[in-house]
Amino acid sequence: MESVHKTHHCGELRKEHVGQEVVLNGWVHKQRDFGGLIFLDLRDRSGLVQVVCNPETSPAAVEIAQKVRSEYVLAVRGKVINRSPETVNPKLETGEIEVQAEEIEILTPAKTPPFVIQDQVDVDEPVRLKYRYLDLRRPVMQQTLILRHRAMQVVRRFLDERGFIEVETPMLTKSTPEGARDYLVPSRVHPGEFYALPQSPQLFKQLLMVAGMERYFQIARCFRDEDLRADRQPEFTQIDIEASFLPQEAFLEMMEEMVATLFRETIGVEVERPFPRITYREAMEKYGSDKPDLRFGMELVDLSEIVRNSGFKVFSSTVAAGGQVKAINVKGCAGWSRKEIDSWGETAQQLGAKGLAWLAVKEEGRKGPVAKFLSEEEWDRIREATEAETGDLLLFVADRPQVVAHVLGELRLKLGKHLNLIDPNAYRFAWITEFPLLEYDEETKRYYAMHHPFTMPVEEDIPLLKTDPGRVRAQAYDMVLNGYEIGGGSQRIHRREVQEAMFEALGLSMDEAREKFGFLLEAFEYGAPPHGGIAFGFDRLVMLLAGRSNLRDCIAFPKTASASCLMTEAPSPVDERQLDELHITVREEVTQKAE
Amino acid sequence: MESVHKTHHCGELRKEHVGQEVVLNGWVHKQRDFGGLIFLDLRDRSGLVQVVCNPETSPAAVEIAQKVRSEYVLAVRGKVINRSPETVNPKLETGEIEVQAEEIEILTPAKTPPFVIQDQVDVDEPVRLKYRYLDLRRPVMQQTLILRHRAMQVVRRFLDERGFIEVETPMLTKSTPEGARDYLVPSRVHPGEFYALPQSPQLFKQLLMVAGMERYFQIARCFRDEDLRADRQPEFTQIDIEASFLPQEAFLEMMEEMVATLFRETIGVEVERPFPRITYREAMEKYGSDKPDLRFGMELVDLSEIVRNSGFKVFSSTVAAGGQVKAINVKGCAGWSRKEIDSWGETAQQLGAKGLAWLAVKEEGRKGPVAKFLSEEEWDRIREATEAETGDLLLFVADRPQVVAHVLGELRLKLGKHLNLIDPNAYRFAWITEFPLLEYDEETKRYYAMHHPFTMPVEEDIPLLKTDPGRVRAQAYDMVLNGYEIGGGSQRIHRREVQEAMFEALGLSMDEAREKFGFLLEAFEYGAPPHGGIAFGFDRLVMLLAGRSNLRDCIAFPKTASASCLMTEAPSPVDERQLDELHITVREEVTQKAE
Repeated sequence: MESVHKTHHCGELRKEHVGQEVVLNGWVHKQRDFGGLIFLDLRDRSGLVQVVCNPETSPAAVEIAQKVRSEYVLAVRGKVINRSPETVNPKLETGEIEVQAEEIEILTPAKTPPFVIQDQVDVDEPVRLKYRYLDLRRPVMQQTLILRHRAMQVVRRFLDERGFIEVETPMLTKSTPEGARDYLVPSRVHPGEFYALPQSPQLFKQLLMVAGMERYFQIARCFRDEDLRADRQPEFTQIDIEASFLPQEAFLEMMEEMVATLFRETIGVEVERPFPRITYREAMEKYGSDKPDLRFGMELVDLSEIVRNSGFKVFSSTVAAGGQVKAINVKGCAGWSRKEIDSWGETAQQLGAKGLAWLAVKEEGRKGPVAKFLSEEEWDRIREATEAETGDLLLFVADRPQVVAHVLGELRLKLGKHLNLIDPNAYRFAWITEFPLLEYDEETKRYYAMHHPFTMPVEEDIPLLKTDPGRVRAQAYDMVLNGYEIGGGSQRIHRREVQEAMFEALGLSMDEAREKFGFLLEAFEYGAPPHGGIAFGFDRLVMLLAGRSNLRDCIAFPKTASASCLMTEAPSPVDERQLDELHITVREEVTQKAE
Repeated sequence: MESVHKTHHCGELRKEHVGQEVVLNGWVHKQRDFGGLIFLDLRDRSGLVQVVCNPETSPAAVEIAQKVRSEYVLAVRGKVINRSPETVNPKLETGEIEVQAEEIEILTPAKTPPFVIQDQVDVDEPVRLKYRYLDLRRPVMQQTLILRHRAMQVVRRFLDERGFIEVETPMLTKSTPEGARDYLVPSRVHPGEFYALPQSPQLFKQLLMVAGMERYFQIARCFRDEDLRADRQPEFTQIDIEASFLPQEAFLEMMEEMVATLFRETIGVEVERPFPRITYREAMEKYGSDKPDLRFGMELVDLSEIVRNSGFKVFSSTVAAGGQVKAINVKGCAGWSRKEIDSWGETAQQLGAKGLAWLAVKEEGRKGPVAKFLSEEEWDRIREATEAETGDLLLFVADRPQVVAHVLGELRLKLGKHLNLIDPNAYRFAWITEFPLLEYDEETKRYYAMHHPFTMPVEEDIPLLKTDPGRVRAQAYDMVLNGYEIGGGSQRIHRREVQEAMFEALGLSMDEAREKFGFLLEAFEYGAPPHGGIAFGFDRLVMLLAGRSNLRDCIAFPKTASASCLMTEAPSPVDERQLDELHITVREEVTQKAE
């Protein structure tokens, strides 16, 4: 062929190209022999087009077309022609035309792939991961990666336009004693010493603020060696942002604008702004969660005061013991069978509740085990609080506040899904604010930083650090979307006396603190600007943008739940010589086991 | 202060702001008491501005200004006023105005830094690296990081506009037996197994081509555990690019355009295009280097044929033994003293030459030890070949071709610098093409791939793979600039029979090859498109754009030559518990030594 190099993408051909000679390059999606005519569906990143090979006009092309099989790579030269009306395929973007082949060259033959390249695959994920290079040929996977690319470009351009500077922070850095488990990298040059891969660029971005960079960002690779849940990867990507001299309010607004721009420019969704601000306390009260799904109601209603003296002892004794009684109103479900209600009761127990009390509001009156124990006055007040109407079903949990929040929060989500209350096309953002600065750990009898020890307390709570640390609120904020935390950040401490009070609350002397966070504290002594920042989980953001439910589908080469790559078979044993150079040995119990 | 949040950047204030009230945030660059008036130079990322505190108009501001020292972080509210003509500072971009302080707030005090924050520092690099957050406050360092940021954005936008998709490839991947030394990461979940940090995304980008992504890029972090030279870092950044179905010529043109866009949009330099194409062979012949500095001439001239039968035995016997005699013409230096010439002779010997012959062309005739051994005919031909004129100095090296190229190539560069022949503002690009595909190793008596075993041979040389592998040229290309290799790439093999011939030339059976490069070869069987790509050394590109000579000055947090971070003190010892979890032990000889 004179030139095998493409003039057009397969998926871009339309009626306006009719009459043009084109060269296409792509993969054979399907080959059909139709009474001597050979039809090839040719596929590239842009889509599919039908190529027709006619033995009368181009016998040489037919001869080759007869030999090709799925996934062969071809160059096709031909003319774009109209399809006859009865063969127009309205499901295909190129369905009004086809390419009449004049010449075909096989660029590369292909073995039959282990699964068919199409959006709907009926194949186990491990097979897809082993043959990731075939899995990624599926249009839906390509579109997700392209969306991911687009998202990165939009975010970078947004931040660049606002004076944020992209800085690459080190991957080979220092192991820090706090936080999650580090991935370690043995040093060859410094025997017995190790680098750690960064869990986040947190310290470096704060140092960049001390360095006067003023506005920093990075789409950064981060690492955590934790046992993986479905939505975790050992290496993940975050949009990492930090700014100096920027009031928190202005910063949050800018981040809202960034996310709104991202949604507009990637998936064409106009996000409602400003995002509601919900305090941590309110979120826990209303939704039993600090990352509420706001796409539906069914809020948790606190009935503790109403049932404090109730004849229903399960309720009143729980309240007396410092617990809570809360309910959700499952609208219109009073007619559920006993069996159905019981199955939700089992779910509640699996979630940690002792039981799930219920009350159905029927035409003939209230029904259910709880009903008869409630006085008329109690019922009136409950009905008012829960806005219960005839046809509604109330579900109650009485327990310690954490348990009530967890159980009813989860039930709310499951019921929302079960009852189709959730609009899959809705994007409901919010900021969760005023997180507690510290968490008390019963086991070690001390406070721990809920975010990290450099998080700034709410100004008016600073005196409480000495008197009642558990009540101190942090200048921290999470961005949530549809039940996911998509970003989290805070203002940072930049004043020494606040930092000292913080360490004191954590039970650390300045000397101990210096041992743990030495170079950062030293840096802070040379003039740290007021600063704060945020990090967005980029993989999850892409997952939400793409409307997918599996995080691995949004990453080009993901790892399994056991942190393996099924394609490259990483991790793997290495040569003894490599370990010699790194001054390390694999422990005997491991090598013995392998023998 | 009502609001401490900045309304303007320090460095942006000009005459047009006169009369405006501004709030500035920044670092005290200098404080001077001038007869009761306090002058503060306030600095932020954008530059410096002078703040004046007048005891008559704002005694409170003066009181605070008296207390501040260098590197204090301040908020200053004040009015922009004209400087009186005699105090205008033309060296300062804000030098026509100053800010009359109305209010000053100390946001954070600062200790006296270990060195003054200014472009010219008289302090050892280790101190700068330990206090990197102060070193990065120096305007020249900030400008370099901002340039680096800008370069990344320009490259991404350029590639995005041309349909390249940015894909993040894994950092935790598989150790490969070939190439440089890997950094290893022990696996906790898979005892005795290791990940490797990528030396480049080479395999993944080729897999993305097999996956039909068609055009890929990434500004990728890569890792090599090699002993570091001045211009190497253990972790470095490359602009990594791969494309399918794109003819090499179109690809090289696109890369030229990318680099030209980069230079235009970062430093305003218009690069001359198209870049000259120089074959590897020609580059070695003319410049003794495959990364020639084309900013000046002084090309190497081959005199071997002329002196083959010369009476000067050093020359004729070298040629007889298969060696070369080449010269460079050092224009206008015939008058150099014997001492001066001898010192270049010593340099030549340090570079590996046995000696440096010379000949000065003077008014009174040719002078130097070589002169008398050359016949008139030889001298006529040499003069013609070297274009020697009266006043010129010829330097000769006779040796094996590799030695001649190395010695004269290096002498050429050193003389170019010494004689100020190099325009520091010139940017002379070229493509070096037709690299040898294979290199023969005398020690192991076999061929090795010069780039990697997937590099496509020049089409017409493919038959030579079986008969004369050393003569096969590769479809490989390096982009060079001013004596640096800034990028290197190749077309890749996508046809099985070529790949097999390549492995055969390397002395590998397909089975052995499969063991080494298993998953990539398997992927190639499912329809690999014709593809090729390139990788640019981004750190070095930034260095050249910024006009710096130290690679570390172009990286925010670089490592030393022993791969240490002096700021964080990475690498460092870790807890025994961490090693327990990773199933590894530090070798006894190391731990004993430490005790």
